[in-house]
Amino acid sequence: MSYAKLKERFKRISALEHMANIADWDRSVFMPSGGAEARGEALAEVGGFMHELTCDPQVSEWLESAKNENLDSWNTANLRHIERAHKLSTAVSTDVVSRKIALGVRCGQAWETLRPQNNWQDFLPLLKDVVDVSREEAAQRAQSTKLSAYQSLVDLYSPGQKVEEIEIIFARLKEFLLQTIQKITEKQKTEPHYQLLGPFNIEKQKQLCLETMQILGFDFKRGRLDVSHHPFCGGVSRDVRITTRYAEHDLAESLMGVIHETGHASYEQGLPQLWAGQPVGTALGMTLHESQSLLFEMQMARSPEFLGLISPLLTKIFGARENEFSTHNLAHAFTRVQPDYIRTSADEVTYPLHVVLRFEIEKDLIEGRMDVKDLPEVWNLKMQKYLGVDTTQNYKDGCMQDMHWAFGSFGYFPSYTLGALTAAQLFAKAKQQMPSLMSDISRGDLTGLHQWLQQKIWSQASLLSKTDLLIAATGEDLNPQYFIDHVNARYLGIENRRATTQSRQSDKTAEINSAEQPSQL
Amino acid sequence: MSYAKLKERFKRISALEHMANIADWDRSVFMPSGGAEARGEALAEVGGFMHELTCDPQVSEWLESAKNENLDSWNTANLRHIERAHKLSTAVSTDVVSRKIALGVRCGQAWETLRPQNNWQDFLPLLKDVVDVSREEAAQRAQSTKLSAYQSLVDLYSPGQKVEEIEIIFARLKEFLLQTIQKITEKQKTEPHYQLLGPFNIEKQKQLCLETMQILGFDFKRGRLDVSHHPFCGGVSRDVRITTRYAEHDLAESLMGVIHETGHASYEQGLPQLWAGQPVGTALGMTLHESQSLLFEMQMARSPEFLGLISPLLTKIFGARENEFSTHNLAHAFTRVQPDYIRTSADEVTYPLHVVLRFEIEKDLIEGRMDVKDLPEVWNLKMQKYLGVDTTQNYKDGCMQDMHWAFGSFGYFPSYTLGALTAAQLFAKAKQQMPSLMSDISRGDLTGLHQWLQQKIWSQASLLSKTDLLIAATGEDLNPQYFIDHVNARYLGIENRRATTQSRQSDKTAEINSAEQPSQL
Repeated sequence: MSYAKLKERFKRISALEHMANIADWDRSVFMPSGGAEARGEALAEVGGFMHELTCDPQVSEWLESAKNENLDSWNTANLRHIERAHKLSTAVSTDVVSRKIALGVRCGQAWETLRPQNNWQDFLPLLKDVVDVSREEAAQRAQSTKLSAYQSLVDLYSPGQKVEEIEIIFARLKEFLLQTIQKITEKQKTEPHYQLLGPFNIEKQKQLCLETMQILGFDFKRGRLDVSHHPFCGGVSRDVRITTRYAEHDLAESLMGVIHETGHASYEQGLPQLWAGQPVGTALGMTLHESQSLLFEMQMARSPEFLGLISPLLTKIFGARENEFSTHNLAHAFTRVQPDYIRTSADEVTYPLHVVLRFEIEKDLIEGRMDVKDLPEVWNLKMQKYLGVDTTQNYKDGCMQDMHWAFGSFGYFPSYTLGALTAAQLFAKAKQQMPSLMSDISRGDLTGLHQWLQQKIWSQASLLSKTDLLIAATGEDLNPQYFIDHVNARYLGIENRRATTQSRQSDKTAEINSAEQPSQL
Repeated sequence: MSYAKLKERFKRISALEHMANIADWDRSVFMPSGGAEARGEALAEVGGFMHELTCDPQVSEWLESAKNENLDSWNTANLRHIERAHKLSTAVSTDVVSRKIALGVRCGQAWETLRPQNNWQDFLPLLKDVVDVSREEAAQRAQSTKLSAYQSLVDLYSPGQKVEEIEIIFARLKEFLLQTIQKITEKQKTEPHYQLLGPFNIEKQKQLCLETMQILGFDFKRGRLDVSHHPFCGGVSRDVRITTRYAEHDLAESLMGVIHETGHASYEQGLPQLWAGQPVGTALGMTLHESQSLLFEMQMARSPEFLGLISPLLTKIFGARENEFSTHNLAHAFTRVQPDYIRTSADEVTYPLHVVLRFEIEKDLIEGRMDVKDLPEVWNLKMQKYLGVDTTQNYKDGCMQDMHWAFGSFGYFPSYTLGALTAAQLFAKAKQQMPSLMSDISRGDLTGLHQWLQQKIWSQASLLSKTDLLIAATGEDLNPQYFIDHVNARYLGIENRRATTQSRQSDKTAEINSAEQPSQL
């Protein structure tokens, strides 16, 4: 009875979220500029309303009495997520919530003009206010969750993900990458390739993207592809809206971007319709979501097998350009490793170091061990150390490059790399369980992969914790070794024995067998 | 204090409406078919929620104590509209509301397949259920408003519009049109013209529509033009979304359709931004709304002056086709009168008879003087009498042609023709007050008309009653003589003395002076 009331309430919140998601998508894709103010006001009002409906003391009462009801596993998990949502929304005072939104919007909007100007001086006081209020938020969340301050923020995006575990994993990854990146760039110097610089007609790029989405199994009856300035995956699970952007001289941006978003979209489209509109029916946090997009983009789409499949498609659409479109050249072009300034355009090998750097900094910022004014210097030191890149005085390509902190998103960055590691682990397991997977992919048959992910991940929605889901799917909790093996194999040609044997050995044995790996985990 | 609470509540309802309007627009324009179920559910949930927020007993309490607050005229009018919205939403029992929605959706969806099949037998029982529940609704509304049953439904769409007044106006109009239509069609037989049958390239039609909207003063920073199956004007006043549809062999449909919707859109874009989100800031009912679209489409755009302006534009876009694109030919092509089956494609002269017929029938249906099963027979008799058209056994082009009744919209039809009459009255007055108006229009300068409508209608939003607004704008309440004068002038070349003199005479004198008019009013 009380549980039924909770379901009804969260169905209503989900209907509001449906509206907000479509309005938000429209804002990025079709809204004329003069509609921005009204849209911003309406979205803020509806957002506040959803918050109220989640906070509502009645929800507390219903939660209390619903605990005595006899529920099956899905409904029990749903109740757990409802309780989590209620607790998260009541943990922070209204004052802090509204100040954080206001300061985040102010700083985020200023960022859009100050970043191109490389203007750190004017950005600093605005960012300082956002960090201050985020510290307040973290302190209040910590009190409510009994977690540490930074942990309580990480938990918002990657539920249950321990910061200590991230530290151990990132330390191992960092050590491995610092030893490995130079080996890769040295090796790649001996592998000349033709860049895909076009020009590539935009209409034809669109056709390529749509045909690729078809190959990937995107359901166009329940989704669309459009254009926006920042690519994203929006809408709702039964009507997923992905976006991309096209540049005449950059085919990789639209093609790989669309494959990435199609990974996100496939997760959404694969969620159980029976549970649509309830918290248990939604995706399980940002790490899992990113694992699906990176499994599609990095693990699968940059493999020689998939690129061999795409090669004739490129020729069909853009005409014969043998130098550029040969599978051999595509494989080189799409796996180029190059330490550089910008996270969003980084390759999969250097990307984790961009994230490790942000993780280390934001943890110190939130927990008060670092001042905002020291950010450029710390950033520069770490960039030099991790990627050999100098950002002295170059704020716009340094510590001002991301919008996350400006808008007050702390604790989000780790999920990018945790997602990359998860993707490697899932893909390795899928290959192990389906020996013909890569040859199926090379023939354009993605049914096996689709069904595997559908069964192991998408259909499970938020029934299990991330750890339980991963153990059920792969036999173990998150293990960075799979990503390390993947980098060794793809970029240095070092095949790990584990990847080819049918049954995995224990971590310990595997470590001993592998020459390349450090021993931190 | 209480009034402030009411404003806050209605701002929230307006934010939900903003979301619903965009989601509804998206449903017609971009939503993939598989998203329909989720969208329908979400819109129904949000619609029910908005109803609850309006019905809320707290609104009643706030209304009671707000009456003692000292408010200026705009806030007083706003309070009046809030009270009206609250009363309308509480007048009908939840049971009737939800039954009506369910039966309306069932019948409306069946209509979409039964109409093309000409299947009256299966449609009849579904429509009967909708009429029955609409009678219940009308009875409950009548009890609450102390109005008659049908009157209480008309009042929903055209607030304050008396049914008795409609009866008098429609009787006069009917008599005039029955005497006049044949004269017009006889005259037009002697005026051969070239139809605009194309083919007209769709992309070029789109260009024509966009350039025409520009001429009409549509603000593209706060609105868009897109394509949908049924053209409409949606979105919100600060971001108006109009749609059209294109057919290669029908230029009039897209061009005149877009001009019509731009009339609606101009009203929305001209509403006072200061009052956005409050009931007083919205448009004043369907009659006024339709008057703006018909003023644009019928009064202005089919005038020789506007068509003379469009003529070179057509040549520029589609190339020279002197026979078709001469101003002379356009004037004939766009003012063709032909009694026919279908209301939506009727010319402005026969259109009112389609509405009079529906008005007479729906009044009898709602007030129980007519059975639904007799609908085809009554329809056929009236169509034969009013337009000389036989609909025996032809249900799909007869009584099954509209979706309004299927969805339970009774009392809406009169607003189409009341809007046409209002348009004629406003345009006549504008021409009288601005002697250079038509020559300005022929030069493409619509500033004067825009400013006149902005001042008299758009900026006034819902401050005044429709009668007071019309008197303030034109010096008198709705008077069908202006429409009659317009038809006589445009279609029979009979210029009424009133139209050319600077100050209008009283109705009585005018009637004596005019040879053409009946004497019912």
